Amino acid sequence: MPDLSALLSPASVAVIGASPDLAGLRGRTLKVMLRHPYRGRVYPVSRSHASVQGLQAYPSIDKVPERVDLAVLIVPARFVPEELERCGRAGVKAALILASGFAEDGNESGAALQGRVAESARRYDMAVCGPNAEGFANLALGLCATFSPVLEESNQFVSSGSAQGRIAVVSQSGGVGFSFLDRGWPKGLAFSHVVSTGNEGCLESFDIVEHLLDEGSAEVFVVFLESIRNARTFRRVAGKALAAGKPIVVAKIGDSEPGRRAAASHTAALAGAGASYRAMFRRYGVIEGADTDEILDIAAAFACFGKRLPRGRRVGIATASGGAGGWMADACAAAGLQVPELEREARARIDAHLPSYGTSQNPVDGTAQAIRTIGYCELARLVSLSERVDAVIAVVTARNAEVFQRERESLGRLARETPKPILMWSYTLPSAETARIVAEAGFPLYTDMRNCARALAALADYAEVQKEQTKTAPDPTEKSPSKSSLDRIGALLESAGPVLCEYEATPLLAEYGIHMMEASLVSTAQEAIAAASALGGGPVALKVQSPQIPHKTDAGAVALGVRGAEAIERAYENVLAAARRVPGAGIRGVLVQAMAPPGVEMLLGIHRDATFGPMLTVALGGIYVEVLRDAALAPVPVAREDARRLIATLRGKALLKNGDTEALIGLVVALSRFAVDHGERIESLDLNPVIVHPAPGGVSAVDALVVKRQDSPG
Amino acid sequence: MPDLSALLSPASVAVIGASPDLAGLRGRTLKVMLRHPYRGRVYPVSRSHASVQGLQAYPSIDKVPERVDLAVLIVPARFVPEELERCGRAGVKAALILASGFAEDGNESGAALQGRVAESARRYDMAVCGPNAEGFANLALGLCATFSPVLEESNQFVSSGSAQGRIAVVSQSGGVGFSFLDRGWPKGLAFSHVVSTGNEGCLESFDIVEHLLDEGSAEVFVVFLESIRNARTFRRVAGKALAAGKPIVVAKIGDSEPGRRAAASHTAALAGAGASYRAMFRRYGVIEGADTDEILDIAAAFACFGKRLPRGRRVGIATASGGAGGWMADACAAAGLQVPELEREARARIDAHLPSYGTSQNPVDGTAQAIRTIGYCELARLVSLSERVDAVIAVVTARNAEVFQRERESLGRLARETPKPILMWSYTLPSAETARIVAEAGFPLYTDMRNCARALAALADYAEVQKEQTKTAPDPTEKSPSKSSLDRIGALLESAGPVLCEYEATPLLAEYGIHMMEASLVSTAQEAIAAASALGGGPVALKVQSPQIPHKTDAGAVALGVRGAEAIERAYENVLAAARRVPGAGIRGVLVQAMAPPGVEMLLGIHRDATFGPMLTVALGGIYVEVLRDAALAPVPVAREDARRLIATLRGKALLKNGDTEALIGLVVALSRFAVDHGERIESLDLNPVIVHPAPGGVSAVDALVVKRQDSPG
Repeated sequence: MPDLSALLSPASVAVIGASPDLAGLRGRTLKVMLRHPYRGRVYPVSRSHASVQGLQAYPSIDKVPERVDLAVLIVPARFVPEELERCGRAGVKAALILASGFAEDGNESGAALQGRVAESARRYDMAVCGPNAEGFANLALGLCATFSPVLEESNQFVSSGSAQGRIAVVSQSGGVGFSFLDRGWPKGLAFSHVVSTGNEGCLESFDIVEHLLDEGSAEVFVVFLESIRNARTFRRVAGKALAAGKPIVVAKIGDSEPGRRAAASHTAALAGAGASYRAMFRRYGVIEGADTDEILDIAAAFACFGKRLPRGRRVGIATASGGAGGWMADACAAAGLQVPELEREARARIDAHLPSYGTSQNPVDGTAQAIRTIGYCELARLVSLSERVDAVIAVVTARNAEVFQRERESLGRLARETPKPILMWSYTLPSAETARIVAEAGFPLYTDMRNCARALAALADYAEVQKEQTKTAPDPTEKSPSKSSLDRIGALLESAGPVLCEYEATPLLAEYGIHMMEASLVSTAQEAIAAASALGGGPVALKVQSPQIPHKTDAGAVALGVRGAEAIERAYENVLAAARRVPGAGIRGVLVQAMAPPGVEMLLGIHRDATFGPMLTVALGGIYVEVLRDAALAPVPVAREDARRLIATLRGKALLKNGDTEALIGLVVALSRFAVDHGERIESLDLNPVIVHPAPGGVSAVDALVVKRQDSPG
Repeated sequence: MPDLSALLSPASVAVIGASPDLAGLRGRTLKVMLRHPYRGRVYPVSRSHASVQGLQAYPSIDKVPERVDLAVLIVPARFVPEELERCGRAGVKAALILASGFAEDGNESGAALQGRVAESARRYDMAVCGPNAEGFANLALGLCATFSPVLEESNQFVSSGSAQGRIAVVSQSGGVGFSFLDRGWPKGLAFSHVVSTGNEGCLESFDIVEHLLDEGSAEVFVVFLESIRNARTFRRVAGKALAAGKPIVVAKIGDSEPGRRAAASHTAALAGAGASYRAMFRRYGVIEGADTDEILDIAAAFACFGKRLPRGRRVGIATASGGAGGWMADACAAAGLQVPELEREARARIDAHLPSYGTSQNPVDGTAQAIRTIGYCELARLVSLSERVDAVIAVVTARNAEVFQRERESLGRLARETPKPILMWSYTLPSAETARIVAEAGFPLYTDMRNCARALAALADYAEVQKEQTKTAPDPTEKSPSKSSLDRIGALLESAGPVLCEYEATPLLAEYGIHMMEASLVSTAQEAIAAASALGGGPVALKVQSPQIPHKTDAGAVALGVRGAEAIERAYENVLAAARRVPGAGIRGVLVQAMAPPGVEMLLGIHRDATFGPMLTVALGGIYVEVLRDAALAPVPVAREDARRLIATLRGKALLKNGDTEALIGLVVALSRFAVDHGERIESLDLNPVIVHPAPGGVSAVDALVVKRQDSPG
């Protein structure tokens, strides 16, 4: 990995293609840079001008009197590769490519140009951002290497006195990336960086996030993603962020078909499947936001209270308006928060300050009168003292700054001292003055009611994921197979055909403690009868084993609940006849298997996600998965606690009320271990159905199918 | 109903309790009134001052030199009843009661005071708003009878040049009600009225809406509701609004338990059950919004395009930022809109103006370059010409007014001429100047991406409900029973006990064409055997009939699929024995019924909602309703088209794919007719299960249970 500080914190910058024409991007980029207080050296490079915007210009990068850290390239796409080569030769350490006309163009020449950029970057070990980027801003450094209109006019910078943590924005889209600044500043938020990554021909979003995590000036990350290019990088960086307690709030576009279309044409990236992304985000505590304001509103809560996360989901609401307080209570409930009645002692403390038409039950309606007598701050503080709440939302009207001016000091004190997060929502539009006072005190001030509730829920979610990290260490009692077993399974998988039927999958799974219902593979009716008898003489299933018939039931190649020699012989002939009607089906025999005792039908599976690799699915079987798509997904490995949570997210989970959930969890974990060890070799693995018996009856895995990965590594 | 124009458009106003003290509510209310351009006469009434705020004051209402239309009462609660009496005697036509301390106080004396207010209002036929109201603003008239801080400072009024329809706000909460003004003005919205109704001791929200519908100055209604007091009024007014094409956008609080608690304590109203409200809203095209901005954003779409509703849900997205456009596409999909690829001809027209790195597929990414060459307006117009879109969202950056100043004229023309709604979303924060230009042109300009998509979806939803109104006229072929049948059913219901078992309900339902599976009531095993034989000799169900055993299966008082004399005899004894173990169960006999052929199990029911009366439920049976709560609700009457829609909203509707849906719809409609005729007499009616057979096999209603209303009218 090249040195990203040369890119984002350079000591010197060359602007290649700089121009005096302020109407065009080439002139504007230099203008934006010069109007900000960057203290490093800036060198315009121009073939046609001896000086540009008051600075001496140089005819090419190798004429610049020092080895610059960063070159900003704003020449047309077709000239970029040779200029980048020249930079490399001149010892430039990093480059930002603003030009469009690369892979996003959708033609071969654009892709080829981008390929040449990547080659140069590798050859010279340069940190290259773009192409098709809108640039970046390092706000602490005062360096704005971008033509974004947001930075062309605004002069707002990190307010040095702010008590809040700083936010770093990393965005594939430049327009969206810089809009976070534009919208965040009026909310009183402090930013450390905005970096637009464009086509990500070399560096990708999470490379930038990793550098900024190491660099340390940001407390919260906002990432606008069209796709994740490298799952390994994502997992490493997201894991590092979680360990550091620095949340990543992400916008993931391309969840819808037209959104995917836009992403594909926009930065030449195929947006990944929504469910896999969501599962990965959940695993690493990455918080998904739905739009600019929601993302900033979540970030604001972390910027103020990220180091004082709530212990639970119980909210006290302190309000001056009964209607607005009740509405907020609904919004909290919708966001998965609880608004419990306060305990008697807390109510008594509050009641002392309320008029008869107020109420302390929660929402605590102080009415305008309590705001006049004790103020927002004291009312919120009294509510925060309740043992029954983990956080407080203060519902205020912030259009008039007067009350807040009066409470300025106590607000600052409360923000510093409260051990519980306190968020403010104004049902009127805050004046700029109020917004400033509240931000300086160190509270997030919301205008959007739902975002306020959502932000608080995100704090609680994040606290939970952090706690899980300590709980979900791999269970040492769950041993993986020995090295020799692993090699044997690997060899078996390798030598098998593209599809493994149940009888082939059975011995592989057994190494992981996944035991299929007892069964024998037979090739005559007489053998079938003998096998059934050896299984105890109860009813059996007869299942044709053919790699070409993955959907045996649809093909009529299965008979269930067969009992007695005559019936078994007839069923044997029937399933074989049905299988023979499938064109090209090679038949390996018929599996005779004991019928499972009754229980709840489920489906467990592994499939390879194109981006993230093996993902594990737990679903309720039959109509639940077919009609209701009631399935839960997680990346492997899945520890016991993960499995428990996964099952708890199923809509039909009540069906498992009496089921042996512990046995099911054990099976999920075992399957996950199989996927960890062999996931690179398989496209999918289905255990379908798995019957969950009433506790403590265990589970029965009744069928298995493995499809090998076509482009498998071996 | 008293004359509401005396309340909301008075020619003269007395302010009873007016004071020179501008720090208190009594002084502020007069001050707010006087600083607005109301042209009517204003009379302060004060015991202690000869003049107040520059106006001659009068010692009591009867000393005022004319019979005023409206008296505003800002005296303490305990003096209100006598002052109101005095007003009545003086011929005052309407009163606004701003004081708190009535029913919301939660004690008897407050409720008693409110009762006396209501008596006086009736006695003198006065239109009385409040108590515990924050007043109202009639913005066209310049009359602001309120102490709301929003009107204490702001001078913004309806911009007379606006092309947009005006919005009227009616709110039980004053704080929330006036916050719509505070937040709507900066969005460029025009308002006709804000009316806060407080405790609604006399007039309720929908009385106000009805008056304003008749009065005609508002095109869109925003209603903030804690509860609906009178379902009849709601239905009449909502129906009238729908017929007039004037949408009602509603905030309904109290969906959550703490929200209900807040509503109960706030205005002493019990918030109704969420599902019934939602069903009523759906019926009348009332649009529910989740918070202030979402509601205003929906209202803005109607204010601009309420008379040009989209023909469908297909959206074209015209954007200057690829990332923002793709994000909006996701938001549209999430809101239930479609973003189809445009047809070849439309793309060719657009492509002529795009750079190579733009795209016309939809989202149409013009890139910054197309905005520079042809502008937002022309790009949006070109997209709107596509045959594949019903509406357009233009994704813009509105922080800088320059582009919009340049396009001012063409924006105005496009807004006037487009037959398809065009909404704008800015991913940066709009400058005040841009907001003004866009509002004056006649477009809604959104800052919230999701609200923009949601507003467009609301236009499409409303168009659908309007279309349904013409389709869902009662089917003339579906006749209700004759007058004599009705009387007979009424008499049967009256003479029955509190619970009717299946055998008692069967003849009543039959009058509506609802035929239960054929059955006989027997009282000996021999009769049971004979009855089974008379039913054709197939398997039968035996069901004990006892009003005290509504849940027969749980009690073991049902046997299913019994066949053969011996088995029937045994089953008969078993179910009777089980029933006899239920303490106090009176046993009317055993119903012998043919088993229904297989199909999908459903549940149909009627229950009485405390606010809205009979509601009809359609649900998938068994685990679907028990585990997944997969049920759909509608107020009666339910016409065929309503029933079809209702079924289509079930999550598990795919289970009905091959089922005889037409027969099911017929059964729903028949049940609805029963509920229309007898709903006042019953608490609930369950047909559970109803088996839907594969088409054209019809449906079988297999069990019925009627619970009579305890406080039934007869």
